[in-house]
Amino acid sequence: MKGKVYLVGAGPGDPDLLTVKALRLLKTADAVLYDDLVAVEILKLVPSSAQLYSVGKRCGTRKISQEEINFLMVSLTASGLKVVRLKSGDPLIFGRCGEEMEALRKAGVAHELVPGITAALGAAAVARIPLTHRHVSHALIFISAHAADKNQSRDWTKLVSSGATLAIYMPGRDHVELRARLIDAGLRADTPCAVVCAVTRPDQQMQFGTLEELPRLQPFPTPAVLLVGEVVGLTRRSGDDIAANHFLTGSYFQTILSDARRLASDQEVP
Amino acid sequence: MKGKVYLVGAGPGDPDLLTVKALRLLKTADAVLYDDLVAVEILKLVPSSAQLYSVGKRCGTRKISQEEINFLMVSLTASGLKVVRLKSGDPLIFGRCGEEMEALRKAGVAHELVPGITAALGAAAVARIPLTHRHVSHALIFISAHAADKNQSRDWTKLVSSGATLAIYMPGRDHVELRARLIDAGLRADTPCAVVCAVTRPDQQMQFGTLEELPRLQPFPTPAVLLVGEVVGLTRRSGDDIAANHFLTGSYFQTILSDARRLASDQEVP
Repeated sequence: MKGKVYLVGAGPGDPDLLTVKALRLLKTADAVLYDDLVAVEILKLVPSSAQLYSVGKRCGTRKISQEEINFLMVSLTASGLKVVRLKSGDPLIFGRCGEEMEALRKAGVAHELVPGITAALGAAAVARIPLTHRHVSHALIFISAHAADKNQSRDWTKLVSSGATLAIYMPGRDHVELRARLIDAGLRADTPCAVVCAVTRPDQQMQFGTLEELPRLQPFPTPAVLLVGEVVGLTRRSGDDIAANHFLTGSYFQTILSDARRLASDQEVP
Repeated sequence: MKGKVYLVGAGPGDPDLLTVKALRLLKTADAVLYDDLVAVEILKLVPSSAQLYSVGKRCGTRKISQEEINFLMVSLTASGLKVVRLKSGDPLIFGRCGEEMEALRKAGVAHELVPGITAALGAAAVARIPLTHRHVSHALIFISAHAADKNQSRDWTKLVSSGATLAIYMPGRDHVELRARLIDAGLRADTPCAVVCAVTRPDQQMQFGTLEELPRLQPFPTPAVLLVGEVVGLTRRSGDDIAANHFLTGSYFQTILSDARRLASDQEVP
């Protein structure tokens, strides 16, 4: 009997945003290998009978190497187990899934991809920002600030200056430098932007402003997504959740959404 | 009693790729307004007691105007109904959701966004294409070929020549012209590409090749997504579903995936 690996997107955090398929796989898995960014509320759905492995890297500190993760997946399936490799968001966006698929292919291990709600889509939904708009933006770019080192600065400039909406993953904590890079690449200082962090999680926070104000949109729980572009300025919400006036006058503010639908339990995952 | 509108992403087609929240909303809705691209398998989940409105446009032919759709949503909620506005994929990507949110805001109607799996993520999952890769592509661009008219040609060139992975929505049927535009914008003729159509639906089809071969990747059931970039070339699958050799020698092929998990019923939606 041979096992199988399911490379599954966990979505941004709220268990309600798992796909039906992901939820079923989690509830019937023999083993789950998860990254640090996967929300604890989602790990609570894994039955206690399943093996649960934390295989994430946090702030660059390795708990386990990529080779060891690959070896673990191959070993578990060799024992006939149904293995879920769980990644925050969507597995094929900034998730190193390509490398894991290649390892599984080389080892002859059956595997299947299950897409998830990537963080930018979750962030846009809670902030009510249309990512494209027929009169404002015809394209949307997902980019990682972390990955955009000096070697990619030329591509970064082309992308940023294209007029498309930007969804910047892993924007980091140095907002002064990030602002400088975006403005150097051609964006106007008054371009609207929104930071959404811990998207759809109990500690979710949102901050709105302009690029000029970016350094004042201060640190928050990770993971965060920065949305930049004229579409962000279309968002004028009613007073119940967001102080629209503050946004319109250009100052920033912060709102913390609590969500009664969250799992109430504070139990630690075993 | 006031109603509420849920602007919900239906995902690419497979009901298994609905979010848990979307499924619950569909099963408890009083009224559902859906676009033409929403898969029939998903409409079958709506209880027969709910009002079901087809409000889509097909090939530019209007059944109902945007103003009429807005009026319908406002009217139904005024009667206290729970209304689901169902859009294929994710509601905030190429879905004109911005205009509907604005209408609801002006009318003072409570509304909430529920993200969905956008077609490009579904396509990448079934074709096993990592959309980003730390050694190959650090960015991903969603663009609509349909929207990119002459006014946007400058932005199109910047985006296409950036080196990022492209996910082209609504690529249309004129692949000769599309190839010319992509190559004119700076892509090499041997850039790998994949067309996935009717993503995760019973009539799903995938075709792989290079930009040079794009005109030979022939018409297919809509909706389609075209993925372009070096990451597409990383995909070398085992023989069970895809003839990898054909891909490696540069010729194209076609595979039709059947999926036993589909709903077997052929009943028409009422």
